[in-house]
Amino acid sequence: MRDAINNIKPEVRALKAYALRPDRASIKINQNENPWDAPERIRSETLNRIESREWSRYPDFVATALHEKLARFAGWTAEGVIAGNGSNELIQALLMVTIGPGKRVLICEPTFALYRQITTVLGGEIISAPVRDGFGFDAAAIREAMRRFNPEVTIICSPNNPTGQALDDDDLRDLLRETSGLVAIDEAYHEFAGRSVVPLLRDHSNLVVLRTFSKAMALAGLRVGYLLAAPALVTEIKKAVLPYNLNSFSQTAGEVALENYDRELRPLVEGIVAEREGLFRELEKIAGLSPVRSSANFMIVRSDLNPQTVFAELLRRDILVRDVSSYPLLADYFRVSVGRPEENEKLIVALREIFASIATATNT
Amino acid sequence: MRDAINNIKPEVRALKAYALRPDRASIKINQNENPWDAPERIRSETLNRIESREWSRYPDFVATALHEKLARFAGWTAEGVIAGNGSNELIQALLMVTIGPGKRVLICEPTFALYRQITTVLGGEIISAPVRDGFGFDAAAIREAMRRFNPEVTIICSPNNPTGQALDDDDLRDLLRETSGLVAIDEAYHEFAGRSVVPLLRDHSNLVVLRTFSKAMALAGLRVGYLLAAPALVTEIKKAVLPYNLNSFSQTAGEVALENYDRELRPLVEGIVAEREGLFRELEKIAGLSPVRSSANFMIVRSDLNPQTVFAELLRRDILVRDVSSYPLLADYFRVSVGRPEENEKLIVALREIFASIATATNT
Repeated sequence: MRDAINNIKPEVRALKAYALRPDRASIKINQNENPWDAPERIRSETLNRIESREWSRYPDFVATALHEKLARFAGWTAEGVIAGNGSNELIQALLMVTIGPGKRVLICEPTFALYRQITTVLGGEIISAPVRDGFGFDAAAIREAMRRFNPEVTIICSPNNPTGQALDDDDLRDLLRETSGLVAIDEAYHEFAGRSVVPLLRDHSNLVVLRTFSKAMALAGLRVGYLLAAPALVTEIKKAVLPYNLNSFSQTAGEVALENYDRELRPLVEGIVAEREGLFRELEKIAGLSPVRSSANFMIVRSDLNPQTVFAELLRRDILVRDVSSYPLLADYFRVSVGRPEENEKLIVALREIFASIATATNT
Repeated sequence: MRDAINNIKPEVRALKAYALRPDRASIKINQNENPWDAPERIRSETLNRIESREWSRYPDFVATALHEKLARFAGWTAEGVIAGNGSNELIQALLMVTIGPGKRVLICEPTFALYRQITTVLGGEIISAPVRDGFGFDAAAIREAMRRFNPEVTIICSPNNPTGQALDDDDLRDLLRETSGLVAIDEAYHEFAGRSVVPLLRDHSNLVVLRTFSKAMALAGLRVGYLLAAPALVTEIKKAVLPYNLNSFSQTAGEVALENYDRELRPLVEGIVAEREGLFRELEKIAGLSPVRSSANFMIVRSDLNPQTVFAELLRRDILVRDVSSYPLLADYFRVSVGRPEENEKLIVALREIFASIATATNT
C-alpha cells in the first residue's frame, strides 16, 4: 500500500507553504492595511444589520444586493461581478477554470506571491517577465513573453505589490490586443493610485479586474473581494466559485462600506496618499535609505543595511515592517505600509536612529 | 485572435453551474439548517468580541485559538486541523492537492453535488459506486470500485446528503485498508447521528474528516467548516488553502459556539433528533408517501405524486422543501429538513391536504 502522502501531487509536495512570521508590534505596517480602523458609522450600522438577521440560515445563493452595489460603485454591470471571500478566492477561481498541466500563467516578478503558488498547485507553468530598472512594468518584455509562450492568463498587480508601480493604460490596451489569453489586473490598491482600468472592460472581453476591501475599504478582517469581467466570462469563472462563498456578516459589512465610501472612506484614502508623499520625502533624507516612488499605500525602501537587520531593529522598537528581501530583485529592500501620521513619524525617528548608529559605527 | 471564452477549460465550459432556485417561504426546510437560530448567549458574546477588535486588520495568519478549540472539541490534535470558509472550501483544497487530469475521485451517488462539480473543474474523473436498495452504502461495491479504478480520493458523505444513511464503521475500516488512496468522510451531519469516525484517525493516515458549523452548530450564515487528518497530510492540504481564508467574525463565532456547545447547542440537537423520529412516524401514515429512515436532520420521502408537484403545492402553502428528483435514483423523492415542532406540524397538515385531494381525485 502506498503511503497516504503519495496521493498528493508531486508539484504540491515540492511547494513551500505560503507563510508569514507571527511577529507583533504596536505599529503594524507590514500588511498594507488601512491604518485607520473601519469608521464608526460603518461599524455600528453593520452590527445593527447583523443583529437583526438569523445566523443559522445560509446567505442568499446569489449575493444580489452586494453585487448591485459593487456594480454601481465600480461602474460596471452586476452580471459582470462576482463577490468573494477576499480577492484571493477569485484569483483562485479564475485559475481553476483556465489552468492545469500544460497551461501557462504570465506574471511580472517581483509581485504578490499567491499567483505563482496557486498556478503551481493547479499543475500550470509560470512564465515570469522581468520588470524594468526602477521596477516599472516592461510592456515590451510582457508582449514578447505573450508571443513566445501564449499564456492562457496574464496576471498583473497594478499598482504592484510590493513595488508600488502601476501599468500604463496604453500599454495595457496593447497587451489586451496582443494576447489571445486573459489579462487579469489585480487592482487591490487602485484607490491610492486614483485610477482604474474598469473603463477598459467595455471594449476588452479578455480583461478581468480584481479588487479588495482589505486596503482602502478598511475591512481586511472581513475578507471581501470582487472580480469584474464580461458577463459571459463571469458565468464560466463562477463555476469554480463555491456556493455561499461569502458569509452574511462580510456581505453586510461590504454593503455598508460601499454606501458610506464617499463620506467615510474617501477622506481616509486622501489622507493616506498625502502621508505617503510626506513619508517618501522623509525617507529620502536618511543616508543609507532610498525609497521607491509608489502609487499604493506602501513603498519599498532600498537599504544599505541588510534588510533583515533593519526589520529586527525596527521590531525591537515595536514597529513591524515587511522584510521582502527574499523576493526576486529585492535583496536590498524592505517594505513599509503608510501608517497613521504619528506612526509614520515614529518610523522615521526609529530609522534615523538605526542608520545614524550605523553611520557612526562606519566612521569610527 | 481566439475568443476570450476559449481560455476556459472545455470540461468547465461543459459543466452546468451549481444553482439553487431563489424561492422563499415562511417555513424554510430546504437546506438542512438548524431550525433554531444561534442561541442568544452565542450571538451576544460573539458581537461583544467583534466590537472590541479592529476590522481593518487581517485575521491572524494561523487561526491558533480556533484550531485548538476545534481539536479539543473533536478529540484530535491541533496540528491535524484546518478551519475553513465552510467545509466546501476544504473539500476543494483536498481535491486541488490531489486531483487533476488522469486522477480519479470515487463517490457514491446520490450524494452532495459539489464533489462531482469540483472534481470536474479540476479535470479529474468521477467514479460513481452504486448504493444499495434503501440507499445504504454498498461497501462491497465501493471496494470493487477501489480495486478496479484505484482512485486517489474517495469521498463519502456520512450520514449522506440527501439520503440520510451512514456508513458502517467496520466497513469504513475495511475500505481504509483496501485503498491506497485517501478516504474523506464528510461528517456534516454527524451530531444528529450521535457518532463520528474521528477515533479512526489515529490508526489511519489516509482518513480525512470534514465537518461544518452550518447544521447542528446553527451558524450557516457564518460559513465555518473544518478538516481533520494526520498532521503530515494537513501540511500538504494547507498549501491549497488561501491565506486568511476565514474572516475574523466567523472565527470568533466559531470559537464562541464551541465554548457553548454542551450548554446551548447539544439540547437543540437532541430536540431535532426527537422531532425527526416524530416526523418520520407522521409521514409514514400519509397514504402516497414513504419516508426513508435518516441519521441526519432531514429525510427523503418517496412520493406517489410527482415531487415537483409536491414542491409547488407546499410552496403555495408557504413551505419550502427541496426537490431532489433530478438526483440519480431519486426521481420520485423530495427532501425535508427537520424544522421546529410547529413547522413540522404545519408540514404534516399541508401534506395530508395535498395527498388527500389527490386520493379524492383518483377515487372519483
